[in-house]
Amino acid sequence: MRKSGSNFRTIWQKPDDRETVQIIDQRRLPHEYVVQDLRTWRDGAVAISDMLVRGAPLIGATAAWSLYLAALEGRNTSDQSAFVAEAAEALGATRPTAVNLRWAIGRMRSVIDSADRGLDLVSLLETEARDICDEDIEISRGIGEHGLKLIEQIAATKQGEPVNILTHCNAGSLATINYGTATAPVYFAHAKGINVHVWVDETRPRNQGSQLTAWELAENGVPHTLIVDNAGGHLMQHGLVDICITGTDRTTRTGDVANKIGTYLKALAAHDNNVPFYVALPSTTIDWTISDGLRDIPIEERDPEEVRSIYGRHGSELCSVDTVASTTNISNIAFDVTPARYVTGLITEHGICAASEEGLVSLFPSQAPRKE
Amino acid sequence: MRKSGSNFRTIWQKPDDRETVQIIDQRRLPHEYVVQDLRTWRDGAVAISDMLVRGAPLIGATAAWSLYLAALEGRNTSDQSAFVAEAAEALGATRPTAVNLRWAIGRMRSVIDSADRGLDLVSLLETEARDICDEDIEISRGIGEHGLKLIEQIAATKQGEPVNILTHCNAGSLATINYGTATAPVYFAHAKGINVHVWVDETRPRNQGSQLTAWELAENGVPHTLIVDNAGGHLMQHGLVDICITGTDRTTRTGDVANKIGTYLKALAAHDNNVPFYVALPSTTIDWTISDGLRDIPIEERDPEEVRSIYGRHGSELCSVDTVASTTNISNIAFDVTPARYVTGLITEHGICAASEEGLVSLFPSQAPRKE
Repeated sequence: MRKSGSNFRTIWQKPDDRETVQIIDQRRLPHEYVVQDLRTWRDGAVAISDMLVRGAPLIGATAAWSLYLAALEGRNTSDQSAFVAEAAEALGATRPTAVNLRWAIGRMRSVIDSADRGLDLVSLLETEARDICDEDIEISRGIGEHGLKLIEQIAATKQGEPVNILTHCNAGSLATINYGTATAPVYFAHAKGINVHVWVDETRPRNQGSQLTAWELAENGVPHTLIVDNAGGHLMQHGLVDICITGTDRTTRTGDVANKIGTYLKALAAHDNNVPFYVALPSTTIDWTISDGLRDIPIEERDPEEVRSIYGRHGSELCSVDTVASTTNISNIAFDVTPARYVTGLITEHGICAASEEGLVSLFPSQAPRKE
Repeated sequence: MRKSGSNFRTIWQKPDDRETVQIIDQRRLPHEYVVQDLRTWRDGAVAISDMLVRGAPLIGATAAWSLYLAALEGRNTSDQSAFVAEAAEALGATRPTAVNLRWAIGRMRSVIDSADRGLDLVSLLETEARDICDEDIEISRGIGEHGLKLIEQIAATKQGEPVNILTHCNAGSLATINYGTATAPVYFAHAKGINVHVWVDETRPRNQGSQLTAWELAENGVPHTLIVDNAGGHLMQHGLVDICITGTDRTTRTGDVANKIGTYLKALAAHDNNVPFYVALPSTTIDWTISDGLRDIPIEERDPEEVRSIYGRHGSELCSVDTVASTTNISNIAFDVTPARYVTGLITEHGICAASEEGLVSLFPSQAPRKE
């Protein structure tokens, strides 16, 4: 089975049972490809909070499908809408940083709110969740097409030598429905025959780079090399990175980007070495209500066990090992904020713009501040 | 047994057998405290290349003791001096980046070269190796005393709140003979009753921070928190780091510092957030022959297995797990160079100076460039 490519999806309805939603348990990649059934909205909430699924767009899509499951469960309750609304409340609290979660839930809620009594809520929410996923694929395609131009420009200067792209965490197919955000331009360039090579940051503590990005690049035949998170600066100092492209979990209207912890350090190194640093994002990731990322974006702190304990293969067995003394105190901050001044540009489905309010409004004019 | 403190040493002659040198197998900390015998110079070479011992000063000391072992072995050969010289050649090639290795071997060789025929080479080299270790402790003490002043200055502004110190890798007791370089000021401040707290970078891929620095800080009762290498920038953005202190494996005469991969990224973050970034070093780590760190310091590339495979405790068993797909291509660069412009100052056994040729020559006037 080819697990990636153009027909790939990270979340779908079970073919012979539309009342079950299926996902890949991403915690077990690359060692095992395990499909997990979601039968209740609580299954969806656990999949998000325990990170069976992760990545801002996929978190949003999983919440949307979970509300469809809630509508199914709520059929037998006295107030289906209230049941779904309660599920929406709980789902909204699963992870604090990604704004897509809030966005997707808001979109599902407005379907509920505007539905005429008597209409079938299950089928309305099913359609909406499916639309969210279909649209996400189109968004990734848009990001891919716009970002492709950046890679083509660099390729034109490299006389066939590979274009070296550094990415952090997984903003790939596995973080979206397909194609990814940061990886979409890479996949589109690779498909066009451009010689690309990706430096994959390991991305401690959850190893989304070494375990997810490396997996999906391999599935798609894209040349790549895994490095520890510490190495990117050295590579940039030595001219071995042509462009950085990362994703983001929330972008302010001024272009500050919250992304996986460590992104800020790579942006600083890119700035110091004149390497372009781009952030790829669906417009659903923009939080138009805030303007100071460092002050306004809530940063999730996660279980110290994620740092202490590492999962992998020991012979034929899969297990976790504790790498540090059991008494060691650990802090596990999941995201950081890269100020807009270190971001060369934002790659969205509408085009590429400067990481600034002016830049974003030029692509999304309906968000222009109202003149008073 | 109290494994650390003022009587602690990382390398010593076996009490009842002076012809055996003993070290701690640092690869097994913090899970096990295992003492390893070195009986031949080749044992010493393996201990260095396989990283049973690491840290620039301890690498130098281990090479010195290995040459003492070579002199013992060479007693039964036709040319003891030639035998030792051959060992020196091989030891010098074990690790490329740390300059102390070259320095310690050079010092042992000059003892050999200046020894009168008929003198006991074994006892001369034994004395010299012991002197190198004793002097290293005095050097660490000097670094500790000078660096203490920096911490005292910060403490004076914090009204009893902890002084937060971030360090990368292990430039601790375990990297030297005792006290360490970067940790010496911390130990001296802690001993003086100053409220200190250390942010310990995990330091992928070898985890010297989470496994060695955390271990020795715990042994000495110094409060600390482990973080992934990605987290330091976020902490600095939020005012949670008062000072960074790292070690170095080689410093140019102009103040560029090679240190464990990732140091450069922390220096960039410190610079961006006005956090003082100091590098602690014995003068033996200065390479007076070079002036451009990025161009002139050889950077070691190590076995990809160090990234792929992680050692730890699984239940009661100690084992390694493979964290990534077996087909994943990996690059494992061990060091990076932080340009002098990002280093607030150098803490040496002679005092603190600017990271510049002028600064270094002010502390080491005999190294002033000759006027022609």
